[in-house]
Amino acid sequence: MSDSRLLDNIDSPDDLKRLSEKQLIPLSAEIRDMIIETVSNNGGHLAGNLGVVDLTLALHYVFDAGYDRFIFDVGHQSYTHKILTGRKGEFPTIRLAGGLSGFTRRDESEFDLTDSGHASTSISLAAGFVQADKLSGKDGHTIVIVGDGSISGGVALEGLNFVGSQDLPLLVILNDNEMSISKNVGALSNHIAGLTTTRFYQWLTDKYYQAMNRKRGIIKALFWFAKKFEKGLRIFGGYENIFTNLGFQYIGPIDGHDIPQLIKIFRKIRQNVRRPVLLHVKTIKGKGFSPAENNPTFFHGVSPWSDKSGSPTKIIDGKIECHNAETTFTDVFADIMCRQAEKDSRITAITAAMCDGTGLKPFSEKYPDRFFDVGIAEEHAVSFAAGMAYSGLRPVFAVYSTFLARAVDEMIQDVCISKAPVVFAVDRSGIVGQDGETHQGQFDIALLRTMPGMTVLAPADEIEMRLAFDYAFALNAPAAVRYPKGHCPADSFAGAEHTPFSPENALVRIKPGSRSAYVVIGPFVDTALRSARQNGAAVYILRMLKPIDDTIVRMLSEYEHITFIEDGCYNGSASEYLASSLPNVKTECICLPDRFIEHGTRDDILKGFGF
Amino acid sequence: MSDSRLLDNIDSPDDLKRLSEKQLIPLSAEIRDMIIETVSNNGGHLAGNLGVVDLTLALHYVFDAGYDRFIFDVGHQSYTHKILTGRKGEFPTIRLAGGLSGFTRRDESEFDLTDSGHASTSISLAAGFVQADKLSGKDGHTIVIVGDGSISGGVALEGLNFVGSQDLPLLVILNDNEMSISKNVGALSNHIAGLTTTRFYQWLTDKYYQAMNRKRGIIKALFWFAKKFEKGLRIFGGYENIFTNLGFQYIGPIDGHDIPQLIKIFRKIRQNVRRPVLLHVKTIKGKGFSPAENNPTFFHGVSPWSDKSGSPTKIIDGKIECHNAETTFTDVFADIMCRQAEKDSRITAITAAMCDGTGLKPFSEKYPDRFFDVGIAEEHAVSFAAGMAYSGLRPVFAVYSTFLARAVDEMIQDVCISKAPVVFAVDRSGIVGQDGETHQGQFDIALLRTMPGMTVLAPADEIEMRLAFDYAFALNAPAAVRYPKGHCPADSFAGAEHTPFSPENALVRIKPGSRSAYVVIGPFVDTALRSARQNGAAVYILRMLKPIDDTIVRMLSEYEHITFIEDGCYNGSASEYLASSLPNVKTECICLPDRFIEHGTRDDILKGFGF
Repeated sequence: MSDSRLLDNIDSPDDLKRLSEKQLIPLSAEIRDMIIETVSNNGGHLAGNLGVVDLTLALHYVFDAGYDRFIFDVGHQSYTHKILTGRKGEFPTIRLAGGLSGFTRRDESEFDLTDSGHASTSISLAAGFVQADKLSGKDGHTIVIVGDGSISGGVALEGLNFVGSQDLPLLVILNDNEMSISKNVGALSNHIAGLTTTRFYQWLTDKYYQAMNRKRGIIKALFWFAKKFEKGLRIFGGYENIFTNLGFQYIGPIDGHDIPQLIKIFRKIRQNVRRPVLLHVKTIKGKGFSPAENNPTFFHGVSPWSDKSGSPTKIIDGKIECHNAETTFTDVFADIMCRQAEKDSRITAITAAMCDGTGLKPFSEKYPDRFFDVGIAEEHAVSFAAGMAYSGLRPVFAVYSTFLARAVDEMIQDVCISKAPVVFAVDRSGIVGQDGETHQGQFDIALLRTMPGMTVLAPADEIEMRLAFDYAFALNAPAAVRYPKGHCPADSFAGAEHTPFSPENALVRIKPGSRSAYVVIGPFVDTALRSARQNGAAVYILRMLKPIDDTIVRMLSEYEHITFIEDGCYNGSASEYLASSLPNVKTECICLPDRFIEHGTRDDILKGFGF
Repeated sequence: MSDSRLLDNIDSPDDLKRLSEKQLIPLSAEIRDMIIETVSNNGGHLAGNLGVVDLTLALHYVFDAGYDRFIFDVGHQSYTHKILTGRKGEFPTIRLAGGLSGFTRRDESEFDLTDSGHASTSISLAAGFVQADKLSGKDGHTIVIVGDGSISGGVALEGLNFVGSQDLPLLVILNDNEMSISKNVGALSNHIAGLTTTRFYQWLTDKYYQAMNRKRGIIKALFWFAKKFEKGLRIFGGYENIFTNLGFQYIGPIDGHDIPQLIKIFRKIRQNVRRPVLLHVKTIKGKGFSPAENNPTFFHGVSPWSDKSGSPTKIIDGKIECHNAETTFTDVFADIMCRQAEKDSRITAITAAMCDGTGLKPFSEKYPDRFFDVGIAEEHAVSFAAGMAYSGLRPVFAVYSTFLARAVDEMIQDVCISKAPVVFAVDRSGIVGQDGETHQGQFDIALLRTMPGMTVLAPADEIEMRLAFDYAFALNAPAAVRYPKGHCPADSFAGAEHTPFSPENALVRIKPGSRSAYVVIGPFVDTALRSARQNGAAVYILRMLKPIDDTIVRMLSEYEHITFIEDGCYNGSASEYLASSLPNVKTECICLPDRFIEHGTRDDILKGFGF
C-alpha cells in the first residue's frame, strides 16, 4: 500500500464523484489489485469481477446508488460495488465466516437490493421495484447488470417479456463477455454476438425517443403514427433484434472498458430515458490479470492460490498449476461417466453451464456427440433429458443440488409421471461452504423424496459411488445420486461388505452394537464410528433414501435409541420419515437446521451443527 | 348419429388418409360435434380443442403419426388427435374415472408421446426426441403444437434457444389464438401479433433453404456465403423476428382453418425441411361453436352444462348462464382480496394467466393498476412479487398448487432468503379431480414446509379464510395460504371459537375426547366429527402447518392414538413431522399416497384414500 492510493479516500459513492473522469482509470487498476489480492487469499469469483470494474465505476460515477438502484444478476460480480459502497475495509473478509458475502445481501448493506446467488431473476426483481415506484410515483433509475450467460435463463426471458410489454423504465445492461462459467452456448448467444448498429441508426432512434418524451399529452393519433415510425426506423436500419422485438430500445454494443464512453452514455440515458432500454456492453472476463484473461473458466470461481493456505492451486510464472491432493466425489463421477459411456452407448450427459464444475469435461471430450451444455437453463435440461429418455437413451443430468430447485416441476411432470429413466447426478449436496445461503445443498433430499417414483441414492465413498451409478443406470426409472463437495474416501465401510444397491440392501451395518445405533447418510461414517466405539452403539449407513422398505424400518425398530445423521433439512428428510415410522424408538436427528446457512468453510459449518 | 358419418369409418390415421382433401371439411364438422357433445357431458377443455380440429386433421393427413411425432404442449388440445388415433370409441369417457385422460398420456396410446398437463415444456421434450434420432440415425419428423400463451413460458424460450443453436430438425407450430386461458399478455405476444411476411420473401427463403439442402458436401466457404445470404435475405425483407433471431426459419402467419392450405404447406415442409422451422398458424379459439367463439375464456375449461348432471352452468339460446349454487374457497378469496385492497393500498395481485380461475377478476376490475397478469410465467411472477415486496408493497401471487412447483427456486432465493412479505394464495390444493395426475395439488405442503421462514396456513372454512389472510397480510414475512377446489363451508368449527391465527393458536380443539384424537388439516372436519362422535375421540384442526410450535406437540402428546388427516403427500407433510415428534403416541396418517393420482371426481378420489 502506498499513501498515494486514490482508493484510500473512497468510502462511499459520493467520494467517487469527487474524482475527475481521468482519475477513474488509475482507480480501476487499484480496485483490480485489491480484488486479485483478496481472492488469492480467500478464493472467490475472480474473472467476472475483473471484467466489470470499469462498468461499475462508471455506473457509480453517473448514477446515485441509494437513490438509483443497481441490481446485480447472480451477484458474484458485485465486488467493485461492495468496495465502492463503504465495504472497502471489510473486503478482505469476503467469503470468510462472519465476513462479507460473496454475493449481494440485503442485510449487509443498503446498497445491496437483492439476495443474489442463482442466475436470471434480476430482471423480474427489478420489474418489481420499478412497478412499485410507478404506483408510488417515486423517481430514480433502476439498473440491472446481467451477463449474457444468465440472460438466456427462462426466468430472465420471462422478465424481458414482461418489462417490454409494460413499458417499464428499466435499464438492462447486458454484460457480454461471451461466457457464463464456461463458453456461452445457445442461439441467443450467437444472436447477441452478431448484434450491431450504426451511429446513424442510434442517432435516429435517440431523436425518435426524445420526440416521444416531449410529445406527452398530445393526441393518440400522433403516438400511433410515432409507433409506426419506430417500427419503420428499425426496418430501415435493419437492426431489429430479439430485444427490440420484446419492446426494448437497444443501444450497443459498446466497449465496457472505455470508462469515458460509458460515462457519456450513462449520462445520456440518465437524462432522457424513461422506458425499457437494453445497453449491450462488451467486457473481457479477467480483464487486467493475464492468467484470468487467458483462462477465464478456471478463474470464474477459484480457491485461494497463495501457498500459505495450503491450497492445491498455485500460480507459477502466470500459469496455473493444479495439483489436487485428494480425490473428490466429482472426480469419481467424472471417471464413472467415461467408463459407463464406453459400455453403454445409450448414455448421454447434460449440464447447465457447469461442464467443469460437475466433472463432465472428460466425458465431453471423449463423447462430444453425446454431451450437451444447454447453458443456464435447468428447466430445459430436465425436459430435454426426459425426451431423450422416452427415446430409449439414458441421459444423465449433472447438476448442483442448489440448482435442482429450479426444475422441480419438470422433474415431476416430464420425468416422474412418465417414469422416464433420467439419472440426476446431484453434486454439492449438503453444505458447500463459502458460497453461502443461496448455494447450500440443503433441500435436495426433501425435494427428491417428495417426487413419486424417484429413487434417491446417497453413496458414502468411491466404491459406493460406482455401485450407486450401476444401480441408477440399470433401473428403468428416474434416479438421483446425491454426493457432497470435497474429498471422497476410497472405502468408508470399515470392513463391512459393499453389496450392490437394492431396496433390501438400503441399510448396511458397519459396526454391531446393542440398544442404540447411529444411522448415517453420506460421508459421516468416521464421526459416527468414533462415538460408537466409546458408547457401544451400532453404526449403519443408509445408502438409499427412497424408496425406504419396511424391512429397513423393522431392522431399526429393535433399537431403543437411534441417532440419525443427515446433511439435508429435517422437513422432508429420510430421518424424519424413519423417526415417524419408529414409534417405539427414541430418535435424535442431526440434520441441517430449518434456516438459511451463511458462508464459512464446509468443515466449520458442519461441526457447528454437530456433524 | 347418422349412417353417413365419415367419422364412423375412421379408426386410425391410415383411414383418414383414404379420404379426399375435400372430405376433411365435413369431417371436421363431425369431430366438432363429437367434442361439443362429449364436453357438454363430461366438462373439459372446449374452446382450444375446437380451434385445432382443422390443424390436427391436416397434420394427420400429411404426416404419419407413429413414424412422425406430434407433441402437444399442455396436451389439453389433443382431443381431435385422440379421436383420430383409435380412441374414438372411448372418447365419451374422457376425464371420467377409468376413462381417457384429458391430456396426452404415454400409457394411453402409442400416439401420445408425452405426459402433458403443464405448459411450455414441449419444445424441450421434442428436442430430446430429435437429438436421440440424430444419435441413432433415425428419420421421421417431430412436430410440436404449442400455443402463443405457452410459448412465452421460460422453459419454452430456453427450448427455442437450444433447438435453434443445435440446428435440430424440428417443426414448431405456433398455434396463435391470441389467448392462453385469458387474453394473452406480454411483449412476445404483441410481437407475434405483428408478424407478417410477403409471398416473395417466403419464395426467396424457400429457394435458399432448398439450395442449402442440395449443397451438402460442398466446401465450407460456400456455406459461409450462403449464411451471409440468409442474413441478407432477412434484412432485405425486413422480416427479422424473434424466431429467426433464435435460428428458426419462420413461415406464416397462415389461416389454421384453411385445411387445403395447411395440407399444401405441410407437404412442402415434409419434403424439404431438415432444420428448425416455426410455422405460425392463426386459429380461432372455440371455432365452429358460437358460444365458445364469443366467450373463449369461459369455454377454455368448462363444467358439464347439460342439466342432467346438476351442473351450475347452462347454455340458454347460445348464452351461458352461471348460477353457482355454492360458495367456493376461490369466491371467498376473491372477496377477501377486494376488501383487503380497499383497506391497504400496499396490496397488489399477480396471476400467471389465471385471472378467472384464481378469483382475481373482481380485484383486476377494481384495481387495474395493482393487478398483474404476467402470462404463463410462474418464475417471473414470484421474483416480480419479491421485488415489489422489497419496495414495501404486499403482493399476493394467486396460483394453483400444482403450478407452484415451477417457481420453487425463486421462492427459496428471492422470497424466503430475503424474508420478503409475499403472500401466496395457493388454490386447488389437494385433489382437483378431473384434470388428473399433472394437476393434483399434492405437493404444495411438502414444498412449502421445506422452505425456511415460510408460514403455511390451511383454513378450513370461510371464517378461517378471512382470519388466515388477516394473519398473512399482517406478517412481515413470506406466507402461503392453501385451500382446495370447491365448496367453502361458512363455519366448520362446530361451535368452537375462531381465534386469530398465531403459532400458539395453530391447533384448535373442535370436540373434546379422551385417549384418541383426530387432527384434521383443511376441510375434512365433518368426516372426523362423524367418526369421533362414535368412538369418543377428540377432534382438532391444525390450521398452521408451519411453523409448528412445541406447545402443539405437547398438547398432542397427551393422547395414546392420533389419526392425522391431510390432503397432501405424506413425505414432507405436517403429519409426518408431528408423527416423528410424538414418539409415545401411536399415529396413523391419512394422506395422499406416494404416487400420481389419476383423474376422477374429487369426492370419489378422496373417498378412495379414506378421507
